[in-house]
Amino acid sequence: MKVPPEVLSFLKEQDRFFIATHINPEGDALGSSIALSMALEAMGKTTVVYDRDSVPEYYRFLPGHERVASSTSDLQTADFHLALLDCNIPERAGINGVQFRRVLVIDHHETEKDFGDIKWVRPDAAATGMMVFYLIKELGMKITQEIAVNLYAALTIDTGTFRYANTSAEVLKVAAELVEAGANPAFISTNLYETWSEKRFRLFIMALNTLEIRENVAFTAVTRGMFRETATTAEDTENFSGVPRMMKDIKISAFFRETDENHWKVSLRSKGDINVSRIASVFGGGGHKNAAGYRIKAPLNNAKEILMDEIRKSGSFRA
Amino acid sequence: MKVPPEVLSFLKEQDRFFIATHINPEGDALGSSIALSMALEAMGKTTVVYDRDSVPEYYRFLPGHERVASSTSDLQTADFHLALLDCNIPERAGINGVQFRRVLVIDHHETEKDFGDIKWVRPDAAATGMMVFYLIKELGMKITQEIAVNLYAALTIDTGTFRYANTSAEVLKVAAELVEAGANPAFISTNLYETWSEKRFRLFIMALNTLEIRENVAFTAVTRGMFRETATTAEDTENFSGVPRMMKDIKISAFFRETDENHWKVSLRSKGDINVSRIASVFGGGGHKNAAGYRIKAPLNNAKEILMDEIRKSGSFRA
Repeated sequence: MKVPPEVLSFLKEQDRFFIATHINPEGDALGSSIALSMALEAMGKTTVVYDRDSVPEYYRFLPGHERVASSTSDLQTADFHLALLDCNIPERAGINGVQFRRVLVIDHHETEKDFGDIKWVRPDAAATGMMVFYLIKELGMKITQEIAVNLYAALTIDTGTFRYANTSAEVLKVAAELVEAGANPAFISTNLYETWSEKRFRLFIMALNTLEIRENVAFTAVTRGMFRETATTAEDTENFSGVPRMMKDIKISAFFRETDENHWKVSLRSKGDINVSRIASVFGGGGHKNAAGYRIKAPLNNAKEILMDEIRKSGSFRA
Repeated sequence: MKVPPEVLSFLKEQDRFFIATHINPEGDALGSSIALSMALEAMGKTTVVYDRDSVPEYYRFLPGHERVASSTSDLQTADFHLALLDCNIPERAGINGVQFRRVLVIDHHETEKDFGDIKWVRPDAAATGMMVFYLIKELGMKITQEIAVNLYAALTIDTGTFRYANTSAEVLKVAAELVEAGANPAFISTNLYETWSEKRFRLFIMALNTLEIRENVAFTAVTRGMFRETATTAEDTENFSGVPRMMKDIKISAFFRETDENHWKVSLRSKGDINVSRIASVFGGGGHKNAAGYRIKAPLNNAKEILMDEIRKSGSFRA
């Protein structure tokens, strides 16, 4: 992957960078932001890494995670250049209206609107971490062990540990290079996948017990009562929505999380060509082709029926 | 990895090979056996691929899986050279006493006893599929797409899709080369991990509902009644034992499968340095450090207590 020369010269010539990424940060957002910060500081630059939300506990194994600040109050942002990573509009990072000098965007999502002075957006990249990997090398900086761990975590999360369709030979080669630079795949995977609390696991079992299958759609749900009973929070339901896809005949998994009486946050996950972001958008939500979400106010059973109607209308199962 | 010259010359000089692998075959056993068969046949050799057990349904996406025969009755095995893969004693392949000309062993497990005329045993190899990859290249044969899919599946299974401690830079590089040769990571992962039947998933939920945690040990169980209720079989419980390891505080997962009234097949899975094969051997079982098993006759609760006693005695939690 070729890094545009204007991205390189911008980073080389300027000195103070505010690196921001999207709210609800995951491995790619955090890993690529921290890695870029480390490389720029090794070049003698000043960087601030910002996320509106704090680093989730299970990402606190990332070296340098303590760089990520969730406040800008004591900062003269207008003195900084913004590097926006893993998203491409300021709203996603919770920094709309904040003043910066110039703006660089580095992202692998589809561009949502024209934002930024220098844009490097590659939807064909498996992760923003892939882009930052090439960027750091082109800047002539070393992929240190700490950078390698962050970038490996970024690749891991965005490829489902090398299971998704974006897992290319190039991704595996970069992963190999990161391991050579000191990233430990087992350590990273253990931290990402084997650190559930017992109460989270008990909530997971409760969610599975709600399984209902209609046609090729799996429904699961977590109620406020279950959160209370297990002393868990919304964060603990991360990835629950994907699990029923293990079933061969399930084309869409719909996970309902109760936010208030008859209020639900619905996460949709689909396989292959079934586009759930189109379905979510009918309800005012959005997302990607295989992972999308929306909110709805209705008794659970009605909410399920309304969704089934929309899925049938969308013709998803004819594909 | 260097292939011993005697292995290469043996395969080049001889013409008829009986390729056998262990009973209860998984991805590495099947993938490496099928790949070797394809390469040897491309060299004009005659091969038979044998497994005492038939290919599990979820491995029937492997190109060439129909090569695997589970009968030798119409074969003059004494005319064949044996290539024993992914195990190193004939008992594991269910071919003890069968006569062959000479015997080649290709395996990455610790040698159990001195068997075979030519032995290539590399416990440091992540998978037998890694060894077969280098072997095919050294034989001067092409890694065709069909071979690549088989070897990629072998690597995937034995590294937990690149999550286990055996995931090295070398493994990732070989995986990249296999993708370049035509293996599709998403296709393979979907076939391996997203093809559960609904009844298997229902059995999984039932097993999770039996979860009991004592100290750092998670206990789950499947009874004959559950098999009946869900119309499933022992094969459907594959990998159930590993799931409770998702919990941070769980060091050992013990999964009990009822085989008869008060008869249990126990599968142990552990994390890190905890050696469950030592514990299993106390009960006459065996396995690897992090995955072992044994059989016991006792009421379930007694069986659990006996195991807990043994775990405590082993000092596993002091490590």
